[in-house]
Amino acid sequence: MMRAVDVIIKKRDKLALSREEIDFFVQGFTRGEIPDYQVAAWAMAVLLNGMSDQETTDLTLSMAYSGEVLDLSGTVDIVVDKHSTGGVGDKTTLVVEPAVAACGLKVGKMSGRGLGFSGGTLDKMESIPGYRTDLSTAEFMSQLKSIGLVLTGQSADLAPADGKLYALRDVTGTVPSKPLIASSIMSKKIAGGAQVIVLDVKVGSGAFMETLQDARELARLMVAIGRLSERKVIALLSDMNQPLGEAVGNALEVREAVETLHGGGPADFREHCLVVGSHLLVAGRKAKDLNQARVMLEKALAEGQAWEKFRQLVIAQGGDVSFVDDVEKLPRAPVIQTLPADRSGWLSQVNARTIGEVSVTLGAGREKKGDPIDHSVGIMVHRKVGEYVEQGEPLFTIHARSVEEAEAAAERLSGALQWSKTPVAPLPLFYGVME
Amino acid sequence: MMRAVDVIIKKRDKLALSREEIDFFVQGFTRGEIPDYQVAAWAMAVLLNGMSDQETTDLTLSMAYSGEVLDLSGTVDIVVDKHSTGGVGDKTTLVVEPAVAACGLKVGKMSGRGLGFSGGTLDKMESIPGYRTDLSTAEFMSQLKSIGLVLTGQSADLAPADGKLYALRDVTGTVPSKPLIASSIMSKKIAGGAQVIVLDVKVGSGAFMETLQDARELARLMVAIGRLSERKVIALLSDMNQPLGEAVGNALEVREAVETLHGGGPADFREHCLVVGSHLLVAGRKAKDLNQARVMLEKALAEGQAWEKFRQLVIAQGGDVSFVDDVEKLPRAPVIQTLPADRSGWLSQVNARTIGEVSVTLGAGREKKGDPIDHSVGIMVHRKVGEYVEQGEPLFTIHARSVEEAEAAAERLSGALQWSKTPVAPLPLFYGVME
Repeated sequence: MMRAVDVIIKKRDKLALSREEIDFFVQGFTRGEIPDYQVAAWAMAVLLNGMSDQETTDLTLSMAYSGEVLDLSGTVDIVVDKHSTGGVGDKTTLVVEPAVAACGLKVGKMSGRGLGFSGGTLDKMESIPGYRTDLSTAEFMSQLKSIGLVLTGQSADLAPADGKLYALRDVTGTVPSKPLIASSIMSKKIAGGAQVIVLDVKVGSGAFMETLQDARELARLMVAIGRLSERKVIALLSDMNQPLGEAVGNALEVREAVETLHGGGPADFREHCLVVGSHLLVAGRKAKDLNQARVMLEKALAEGQAWEKFRQLVIAQGGDVSFVDDVEKLPRAPVIQTLPADRSGWLSQVNARTIGEVSVTLGAGREKKGDPIDHSVGIMVHRKVGEYVEQGEPLFTIHARSVEEAEAAAERLSGALQWSKTPVAPLPLFYGVME
Repeated sequence: MMRAVDVIIKKRDKLALSREEIDFFVQGFTRGEIPDYQVAAWAMAVLLNGMSDQETTDLTLSMAYSGEVLDLSGTVDIVVDKHSTGGVGDKTTLVVEPAVAACGLKVGKMSGRGLGFSGGTLDKMESIPGYRTDLSTAEFMSQLKSIGLVLTGQSADLAPADGKLYALRDVTGTVPSKPLIASSIMSKKIAGGAQVIVLDVKVGSGAFMETLQDARELARLMVAIGRLSERKVIALLSDMNQPLGEAVGNALEVREAVETLHGGGPADFREHCLVVGSHLLVAGRKAKDLNQARVMLEKALAEGQAWEKFRQLVIAQGGDVSFVDDVEKLPRAPVIQTLPADRSGWLSQVNARTIGEVSVTLGAGREKKGDPIDHSVGIMVHRKVGEYVEQGEPLFTIHARSVEEAEAAAERLSGALQWSKTPVAPLPLFYGVME
């Protein structure tokens, strides 16, 4: 008879676990037969001793099949999903998903909430009064069929093993393990029925992977899981040393997404969306190559089809569409202060992590799961690394609940910047693609 | 505010924990404020990343002071304690403690039970009907004063953190960590009031430390804990590749101890007792050097004072002394079979671990805590490594509950031996002393 302690000992001794051992452990934990303390010791052994690609894939599949697995094959030709590893100002989903849906690719996406310095798509969408993020599976399927676009939360029965394991990792210091991170992401995507997954792996100060080496290893691992589990994975490595776009904070980001859906928006954010969206369209066989896909997306943004799809989404999920038709109606903070440059020079750093943390302090994010958030507050980040700024030009606009909070934020935001007296190269948007 | 997860993360990242952090963690766990799953993850991080001597000492002291700490200073001049890391046929305590007590050194010892292939002193003493191993602290103190000798179980309130941690380590694959083993042993000794500790660190197939390198490292660590906690530790490294003496099994070992207390007994076991006892007498300042101590002990064994002290012990703790006065009365197995040599040659291995495991299978030990044991069964091991054996000479005498069990044991015991056609050197009794 298999015993949990022997599985722990095997991993402690740096041996590879078999599919049967991993499945015994994951299903035992999910059913409550293997106690938390054994899983905690195992998770620490995994973090410190690692896992092979095959073990990580077996873990991914075992967690994916620990609950319901969606079958979207009757509704969608190819089930394509997108996932970002999380960052600051990353409202990509709000633009990319309506845009690709407008180009004929049906996409049903289950998103998460923000935690720590990193924002979450559900929190952003809930800036729109009435918008529901708790669709049932039946509602999900029905909406995917009718308008070809869904943007909701993860159902509790999807990959329950992952939910349980993540809660335990959070309190046992076992979050930053690449096999555990990769299997957590991939198990949810596979349980959601995905056949092709476009991953946006963020790298930099405002990402969980701070170095390119770490991000590459995580991306490589998820591509390998895809290969071993017969799913296609395309991983983009994108910069998160500075925030993406200008807006950081929930309603502010919705406003920026709406601008971009109208064909405007910050250049870096728009370009990021076009690249991610192009990969989705090619993966979903709606375009024959990235160039054709880009032309389709530019047209959908310029001619209003992407915007119209976003409106359909808001309406379908119960949101009050007047709040996006007129973004002035979105929640607005009582105090809005601009922070001007106290010197002239080239910006050599606009630290995304610091800006994300200040945003949490203002009330836009949460320190721990379940904390309430304020949709109105946040920061507009007006300048990018490599730009020349004249003394007195605006650097940030702070949206706060009080003057005191705005002033405290201003002080910390100054520390997010580094200056140079000589020209500085801008940061790239992407560092590469792995597939 | 200190958080348990941060202590785990620090150890996960190979950093040294402060005394305050270790104490926060140990006391929080003892009080039930830090849950098992956090302690399990921490224990795995300690096992895989190690601990410095200072951290291990801080852990030892925190566990020692997690409950009652005995103060024997009013009863005993110098509190000297002895501990064996456990082996097969190790009935040393039954001879050494009465012998040193007969030489005027008061010794109160709290012993443990057997687990797996390793026997336990309490189980052996309980072969004597009526013998109590659950003395209260008051009884312990009173008996130490009156006859200068106690041999009982550990009270539940002594180092409760260690008891709790050990139970968790047992089911999370975190037993074989030297800092955790060393702090477990030393915390109980310090909670028991010891000022000088003579450690018998066993090495070989029948010990938890199978290599001399591992045993030396464990011994070095416990000597270091002694130095850093202002206790004196003397560690003897002794052989456990083959059983100590001839008897393996509870009543059989009591019988062998009684023979030895009468001045007889197997030569290796008697010599082992004289060496350990000499260190105890010098440590307790009853002899000025090891030579003088040995003379005192030989006299106590030859003239009956050691035997008389053992009788006093049995009587004081409620045992029926007629069972040791006439060892034929001790529990006796229904089936006694001799296994003769099937060839002639020199013995190059008499595997202690195999013999210990066969003894457990016969019923003399337990697979897991709380299993019942049979005091009557066991194995007499007649020959040692390096001896020449003629075909047909007895190798083992098996004491079993049935013929079937005796025959199964005989088959496995043959596998414990290795033979040579050329002479083989005998095994040493000791590999060294560290202090």
